[in-house]
Amino acid sequence: MRRIKLYLDNAATTKVSKEVVKEMEKYFTEEYGNPSSLHELGENANKVLNKAREVIAKEIGAKAWEIIFTSGGTESDNLAIQGLARAYLKKKKIVVSSIEHSAVLETCEFLKTSGYEIIKIPVDCGGCVKIDVLHDVLNKHAKDVLVVSIIHVNNIIGTIQNIEEIGKICRKKEVLFHTDAVQSFGKLNIDVGKMNIDLLSASGHKIGGPKGVGCLYVREGVKISPVIFGGGQERGIRNGTENVPAIIGFAKALSLSKKINKENIRKLRDKLIANLEKIGGKINGSKKNRIYNNVHVSFSGIESDSLVVFLSQRGIYVSAGSACDSKKEKEDHVLRAIGVKDKDVLGSIRITLNENLSERDIEFVIKEIKRFPKPSLSHSKLMGYSARFQDGNL
Amino acid sequence: MRRIKLYLDNAATTKVSKEVVKEMEKYFTEEYGNPSSLHELGENANKVLNKAREVIAKEIGAKAWEIIFTSGGTESDNLAIQGLARAYLKKKKIVVSSIEHSAVLETCEFLKTSGYEIIKIPVDCGGCVKIDVLHDVLNKHAKDVLVVSIIHVNNIIGTIQNIEEIGKICRKKEVLFHTDAVQSFGKLNIDVGKMNIDLLSASGHKIGGPKGVGCLYVREGVKISPVIFGGGQERGIRNGTENVPAIIGFAKALSLSKKINKENIRKLRDKLIANLEKIGGKINGSKKNRIYNNVHVSFSGIESDSLVVFLSQRGIYVSAGSACDSKKEKEDHVLRAIGVKDKDVLGSIRITLNENLSERDIEFVIKEIKRFPKPSLSHSKLMGYSARFQDGNL
Repeated sequence: MRRIKLYLDNAATTKVSKEVVKEMEKYFTEEYGNPSSLHELGENANKVLNKAREVIAKEIGAKAWEIIFTSGGTESDNLAIQGLARAYLKKKKIVVSSIEHSAVLETCEFLKTSGYEIIKIPVDCGGCVKIDVLHDVLNKHAKDVLVVSIIHVNNIIGTIQNIEEIGKICRKKEVLFHTDAVQSFGKLNIDVGKMNIDLLSASGHKIGGPKGVGCLYVREGVKISPVIFGGGQERGIRNGTENVPAIIGFAKALSLSKKINKENIRKLRDKLIANLEKIGGKINGSKKNRIYNNVHVSFSGIESDSLVVFLSQRGIYVSAGSACDSKKEKEDHVLRAIGVKDKDVLGSIRITLNENLSERDIEFVIKEIKRFPKPSLSHSKLMGYSARFQDGNL
Repeated sequence: MRRIKLYLDNAATTKVSKEVVKEMEKYFTEEYGNPSSLHELGENANKVLNKAREVIAKEIGAKAWEIIFTSGGTESDNLAIQGLARAYLKKKKIVVSSIEHSAVLETCEFLKTSGYEIIKIPVDCGGCVKIDVLHDVLNKHAKDVLVVSIIHVNNIIGTIQNIEEIGKICRKKEVLFHTDAVQSFGKLNIDVGKMNIDLLSASGHKIGGPKGVGCLYVREGVKISPVIFGGGQERGIRNGTENVPAIIGFAKALSLSKKINKENIRKLRDKLIANLEKIGGKINGSKKNRIYNNVHVSFSGIESDSLVVFLSQRGIYVSAGSACDSKKEKEDHVLRAIGVKDKDVLGSIRITLNENLSERDIEFVIKEIKRFPKPSLSHSKLMGYSARFQDGNL
C-alpha cells in the first residue's frame, strides 16, 4: 500500500514547521526566564513577550495591550463569555449563532444554570447567520444582552460570516460583539476597528504555531474579569506564568502564514470539490462564503468514521466532524442547523487543505475515496471499517 | 566584569534541557495530530498523551485517569477550587494556610464575592501550618468546608508542610484536601494514597519541563466541574485541544528529574546558607522543614530589588519575592505571616538552586553579594541600583 502522508485535517490542528520550532528553541534552553523575574533573564523574556504581542495585535489592527495571551482558542472563548458575565452582572442574555464552536456553546450552557438566557440565531442552508433575525432579537433585547458571539469561520463547514455587518449592527445597538476567529485568524483579513469587534479569540495551533497558546483581543474600555486568578500576569486578566516559547512560536507562525499562496490552495480545493461532486458527493455549506481551504462533503449511505479510517490506512488524514470531539454527534448541530439530512450527516467528512499539496495529491485523494466500498454493500460489511486501524487490506 | 551565568531562580522557572526539547520536537513537526482526530495521526497523539499521563500518575501513586492536564499550576489551583465550588454548591467555607500561592488566595478572594468564607490557618515562625488551629477549625466547621487547600512546599521560603498529617486530619473529618504541589512535585516523594490527598496541582516548568503545562490530580469519586468548557477533552473536566508536545516534555522532564543528585544540591545550599549568615544574612523560614534547593535571606537595611539587579549585572540571577508577580508586595504576605519585620521583608531575596552548580559557584555568589554596597551608604545611593540594568560599573 502506498504510504504517502497527506494531512488534510488542518482545521483540527496543523504541523509546526521547523522554522517555528527553531524560533522557540532558544526560549526553552537559553532565554528561559520568567517574564515576572526582575533579573536580566526575566527582563529579556518580558521584552520578547511584548514584541510577540505587537505582532499578534498588528494582524487585527489592535493595540498591543489589548491582546491577552491564553492557553488556546477554547480558553479565549471561555474568558470572553465568562469574563464578561462576571464584569457586567446585570446583562443576562447572550446571543449566539446556531453553529458556534462547543467552546462557546458549552460555556453558554453552563451560564444557563446561573439564570442566563441563550438566544440562538439560525443560519441559512449555506451556514450564514440570518441577519434579519439578529436585527429583530437586538431590537427587542439589546439592553439585556451581555454579548453577541458569532463565529467568524465555522470549524466544520468553513462558512465565513459577514462579520463587518454583524459588528455594525451590534455597535448601533450598543451591544458588545465577540467573534471566535480561531479558524480565520491569520487566514482572512481582520480589522477589529473597521469590523467593530470588541472581543476576538484566536489560536496558535491552527496556523502552524504550537498547541497550548492563543489569545483574546479585548477592546480598550471593555470590562472583563479573569477566569483564572493568580499572580497578576496579562494585566491580571489571565494569570499564570506566560508561555513564552509558545507565544514566540505563535507570532512566528503568523508571520510565516503571510507567505502562503492562498489562491493556490483555493484552486486545489475547488478542483477537489468538483471531483467529489463527480463521484456523488454533496457539498455541505455555502460554496461562496467559505474559507479557501475547507471542503465538507456527504456521501449518502456511507459511515464517515469508516471512510476516515479507510483513508487513514492509505495515509490520507481527514476528519469526521470536528476534531475537537471524537464523539462527533456533539458537533452535528452545525450540519443539522443548515438542514443536512440524517443519512448525509452520518456520511460526511471534512477535508481541510494546507499549502503543501499538489494537483497530484488531490487526484490521489479522489482515487482512494472512489475505492471505498459502495453503500450498496451490506451495512455490517461497512461497519467493519470502524474498527480502528486494523492491519491488512480491506 | 565576569559574565558567567548562574541561574539561581529555579522556583520561578527552570531551563528546559536539550533532551526535553528533542523529545518534544517530533510532536511539533511529525506526530502533530490532534488527539481527538480519528485518523492515525490523531490516534498516535492520543496514545502518547495517555502514556505521558501514566508517567505523571505513577509519580504520585495515582491512576492515569485521575490526572487532568491543564495549562499550568495556576490553572490547576483554579480548577481545583472553582471546580469544587461548582460541584459542591452547599459547602461555603474554604480553609487555606496563610502562606498559599496567589493562585489559591486570589481564587478564594473571587469566591468571597459569591458568599464564600475563607478561613486562613496561621503558620509558625518557620512557616509550618499550625496543626492545632486546623484541628479546631475543622472541629467547628467541617460540614460546611468545601476544601482544605494547603501548599506542600511554599514558593517563597520553601517550607515543607506535613502533608501526611494534614491529609489524615482532613480524611478523619471527611473534608476534601487539595495541595498545591507545584514546588514539590518531582522533587519530594508524594503518595496521594498514603497522604490522603484528594486533589493535587503540579506544573511542568518548575522541573525542567516547558511552560504552559501542568496537571490536576483528582481522586476518583471526587466531583469536579470544569472551569473551561468546550469539546469534552480530559473527560470534559478541562476542555481545549490537549497540548501534546508540552505534555510529552513534562513527562520527560519528570523522568530526568529522577537522576538529579538532590543531596548534592542540599549540601551546596547549606554551604550557601552558612556563608550568608557569616556576612550578616538572616535566613527566613524553617531550616529543617525546607525544600533542599531553597534559600530565603534578609539583609537588614538593603533594598532587595537593587541587590537583584546588582547581581544580575554580574550574571547571577536570583529573585526578590515571588517571580509570579513583579509587584512583589503581593507576595509579602508569606514573610509577614512568619513574622519577618518590615525592613527585613524589604531586604530579602530568594535563591533557588539547581543541579548545575558547583562549590565554586556558591563562593562566587557570596563574593558578589559581599561587594554590594553596605546599608550604611545613603538611601539615595542605594536606590540608584533600582534602575533596571544600567550599564557600567556601579
